[in-house]
Amino acid sequence: MKSLSVAVAGLGTVGREAVRLLRARRAELRERLGAELVLTAVADRDAAREARALGLPPSVARFRDPFEMIRRADPALCVELLGGLEAPRRLAALVLGRGGVLVTANKRLLAHDWPRLAGAARRSGARLAFEGSVAGGIPILRALELSLSGDRLLGLDAILNGTTNYVLTRCEEGLSAAAALAEAQALGFAERDPSLDLSGGDAAQKLTVLTGLATGGWLAPGSFPVDGIRAVETRDAAFARERLGRAVRLVASLRLSGPPSAPRAEAGVFPTLVPLDHPLASVRRQRNALLIRTASAGDLLFSGEGAGAAPTASAVLADLFVTARDLLGGLPAPRPAPRRLEIVPPDEAVSAFYLRVEAADRPGVLAAVAGALGRERVSIASIHQEPARGRAASVTITTHPSPRALFERARRRILALPAVSRRHCAMRMLA
Amino acid sequence: MKSLSVAVAGLGTVGREAVRLLRARRAELRERLGAELVLTAVADRDAAREARALGLPPSVARFRDPFEMIRRADPALCVELLGGLEAPRRLAALVLGRGGVLVTANKRLLAHDWPRLAGAARRSGARLAFEGSVAGGIPILRALELSLSGDRLLGLDAILNGTTNYVLTRCEEGLSAAAALAEAQALGFAERDPSLDLSGGDAAQKLTVLTGLATGGWLAPGSFPVDGIRAVETRDAAFARERLGRAVRLVASLRLSGPPSAPRAEAGVFPTLVPLDHPLASVRRQRNALLIRTASAGDLLFSGEGAGAAPTASAVLADLFVTARDLLGGLPAPRPAPRRLEIVPPDEAVSAFYLRVEAADRPGVLAAVAGALGRERVSIASIHQEPARGRAASVTITTHPSPRALFERARRRILALPAVSRRHCAMRMLA
Repeated sequence: MKSLSVAVAGLGTVGREAVRLLRARRAELRERLGAELVLTAVADRDAAREARALGLPPSVARFRDPFEMIRRADPALCVELLGGLEAPRRLAALVLGRGGVLVTANKRLLAHDWPRLAGAARRSGARLAFEGSVAGGIPILRALELSLSGDRLLGLDAILNGTTNYVLTRCEEGLSAAAALAEAQALGFAERDPSLDLSGGDAAQKLTVLTGLATGGWLAPGSFPVDGIRAVETRDAAFARERLGRAVRLVASLRLSGPPSAPRAEAGVFPTLVPLDHPLASVRRQRNALLIRTASAGDLLFSGEGAGAAPTASAVLADLFVTARDLLGGLPAPRPAPRRLEIVPPDEAVSAFYLRVEAADRPGVLAAVAGALGRERVSIASIHQEPARGRAASVTITTHPSPRALFERARRRILALPAVSRRHCAMRMLA
Repeated sequence: MKSLSVAVAGLGTVGREAVRLLRARRAELRERLGAELVLTAVADRDAAREARALGLPPSVARFRDPFEMIRRADPALCVELLGGLEAPRRLAALVLGRGGVLVTANKRLLAHDWPRLAGAARRSGARLAFEGSVAGGIPILRALELSLSGDRLLGLDAILNGTTNYVLTRCEEGLSAAAALAEAQALGFAERDPSLDLSGGDAAQKLTVLTGLATGGWLAPGSFPVDGIRAVETRDAAFARERLGRAVRLVASLRLSGPPSAPRAEAGVFPTLVPLDHPLASVRRQRNALLIRTASAGDLLFSGEGAGAAPTASAVLADLFVTARDLLGGLPAPRPAPRRLEIVPPDEAVSAFYLRVEAADRPGVLAAVAGALGRERVSIASIHQEPARGRAASVTITTHPSPRALFERARRRILALPAVSRRHCAMRMLA
C-alpha cells in the first residue's frame, strides 16, 4: 500500500487536534483512500513538549523551525497552522515553490495573497487546500468546487463570523453589546482583541476566499465595502424585532453576473436586517451559515459551527484526504482558471436601508431629516421618533430600495444637520 | 485534451434538464475538469422527438432501447434516469458488469440492491454515483464521502420527503391533510399516487442510501421501523404548536455506535414532534433538510430543494464531474468497505411519545388510559382531554422518555379498551 507523509507546522489548539484526529482516524482514512497518511514531522516553538503531550512516537520528527522541517522532512503534504501572516506567507512560498501540497486554515493569508498563491501553484503544479479557512467545519468550499461544478453560483448571503453573531444574538436577548462581547470572550468565542471581528474584516477575508473559489477572481481586501457592528446597539436589535419583524445579522453578500469567463461581482459586508423568517435569522450564537443561490439547485443553506479547534481540524483532515486522493490520481484541483474580476461599484448596489440618529428634541428636526432624504430622492418607508432620553430623541428611518450612493449622500446631509449628533447606526435591509 | 463520452438513458424531466445543463455548462466543466464531457447518445421511447426538441446535433446517437445504447455507443459514463425498478436494475447490471460508470438518481434501485450494486462495482472496478437520489440538489452524499472523511458520523435527523413536509406544514397553517395533499399535487410536489411518500417508504429508501454511504452496511428495506403521516391530522399539528411548542415533521433518524469496522445502527422513519426552535422545525413546504451530527465538526445543517428536475439535474452533473475526475485519475470511489451492519432492535430505542386517541366521553376513560400506560411503566408527562365532539372526546398524552417496546404495549392496551376507537395518532418526540 502506498503511503503519503504529512507534516504539521504549528501545534496550537487546531494543530494539536488535527494531529490527534490524523492518528485516531488512521484506519478509516486508509480504507477510504487506499493509501496511508503517515505523520512524519511536526514543527512548533515547543515541538518536543507538544509531541510528548500528544504521545507521538519517536518516528515523528520534531522541529522548532517549520522551514527546516519542510527542507529536511520533505513531506508529501504540509499542514500550515502557524497563525499570523509573515511566517505562513514564507512557508506557503517554500511549499508551493517546490510543487508540494499546502493545507491551511489561514483566511488572512488567502485573502491577501490569493493571486500570488494561485499563480505559484499553477506554475509548479503545487496544490493548495483551505476548507478550514471559511466557516470552520461547514464543508462549503468543497461544495463550491465539486458539488456545484455543473451548476452556476448566482450569489450568497452568509454569516461568516461567530463573534459578531454571538454579540448580535445576545443583544437581541437584551444584553448590551459590551456585556455580550465580554461574555463571548469569557466563553472563548471572541479574541482578546476583537477588532478584526467587530469591524467586519474577518468576514470580508472569508468572502474573498469564497469568491476566489467560485470565480477564479480576486476580490482584493479594500476593493469592496465592509462595515462592522460597532454602531449597532441593543435598542436597534429590539426596534428591528418589535417594529420591523427583523433580526440584525452581519451578512457578507456576493452577487455574481456576467459570463463565467468575465465575472462581475457585487460584494460587501454589512450589518443587515433580515426578516425573522429568513434562514439567517434563526442562526444564533457563534454559529455560521451560508445561503447559496444557484441557478439549478436553488437556494441551499449550510449551517454549523464556524470556528473552534475540532471543527477546523475536521476541515483540515478533509483537505488532507481529498488532496491526497488527487495527488494519488495526478489530478489538479478542480478550480476555475485565474481571471480578472470586475467589481460592481458599491454605490450602484440597490437596497433598502435603516438609519437611526440622535437628534435634539425640538420642532422641525424630523422634517429636516426627512427633507435630507427627499433631496437625494431616497424614498422613506417609515419614520419613528422615540420619546426624548435626556436632551436627545432617537429618530429611526427605514427607506424603500435605493442606490447606496444616494442613501450615503442623504446620510451625510442628515449627520451635518446642527441638531443631529454624529453617533448613529446605519444598516442594510435584505428583502 | 482528453474527452469522455456520456450517454443518457431516460429523457423525462430530469433527463432532459441534465442533457441541457451538460451542453450549457460544457466550457466551465472542461476548464475545471481538464477534459471534455461529450454527450454521444440518448435513449428514450421517444428519443428522436426528444432529441429534436432539445436541439441535439446529429452526432448524438438516438436509441429507443437503453441496453442497445450501452452496447453500441459504449459510453465512458452512463446516466440512468429511466424510472421504475426492473429496467434500471438490468441497466445497472449491464453497465457495472462491464466496469463502466453509472450515474443514477434512483433511490429505490439503490435501497433494494445496495449490496449487489456495491459488490458488482467492486468486482469489475465499475463506479456508481447517486447524489441525486437523496435530497435533490443538496450535496449531502459528497459531503459524507469527502468532507467528513476525517470526521466520524454519529447520526442524523432528516426531512427527506418533500410531499409529506408540504402536507404537514400546510396542516400547521390550518388546512386539512386532504386539502394540503391536493394542493401539493396541483403544484407538482406530490405524485398522483402518493402512497410511497405518505407511508414513509420514500424517506426510508433515502435513509438506506445515506446509511450505506456512511457505514458501508446495508439497512435493508423492511429491517427498520417506518411510519408515515396518514394518521396525523390538522388538530395534531395545532395541538403540538399551541400546547407543546412543537412542530410535526416526518423525520428519518439514524444513530450510529460501535467501531467503524463493526457499526451498529438505530434507524427509523417516524412522524416526529420537534421543538419549534429545532432547525428542522423551520423547514417548510417541499424543502428537505439534514441535521448531521459529527464527532468533530459538530452539528451541521444542510437544507434546500429536495426534488424537482433542476435540482436533481444539478446533482447528476456533479456526479458526472466528480466521477469523471476520478476516472481520469484512476481513483476508486472513497467509500467504506462493505460490511455487516448490526441493526439495534427498534424496541430498545428510547424516546418520548405523543398519543392522541378518541374515547367515549364517559367517566373513568381517562383513568383507564392512564392506567394502561402505568401498567407498562410508561411515565406520563401530560394528559389533555378535549371537550367531546359528538360522542367522542380526544385524549392526548405525552410521555417521558421510554423504550419503544413499552410504549407500543401500552398503545395496544389503550386501543383495546372498549371506550377507545381504533383511529388514533402516535408520534415520536425529539429532544
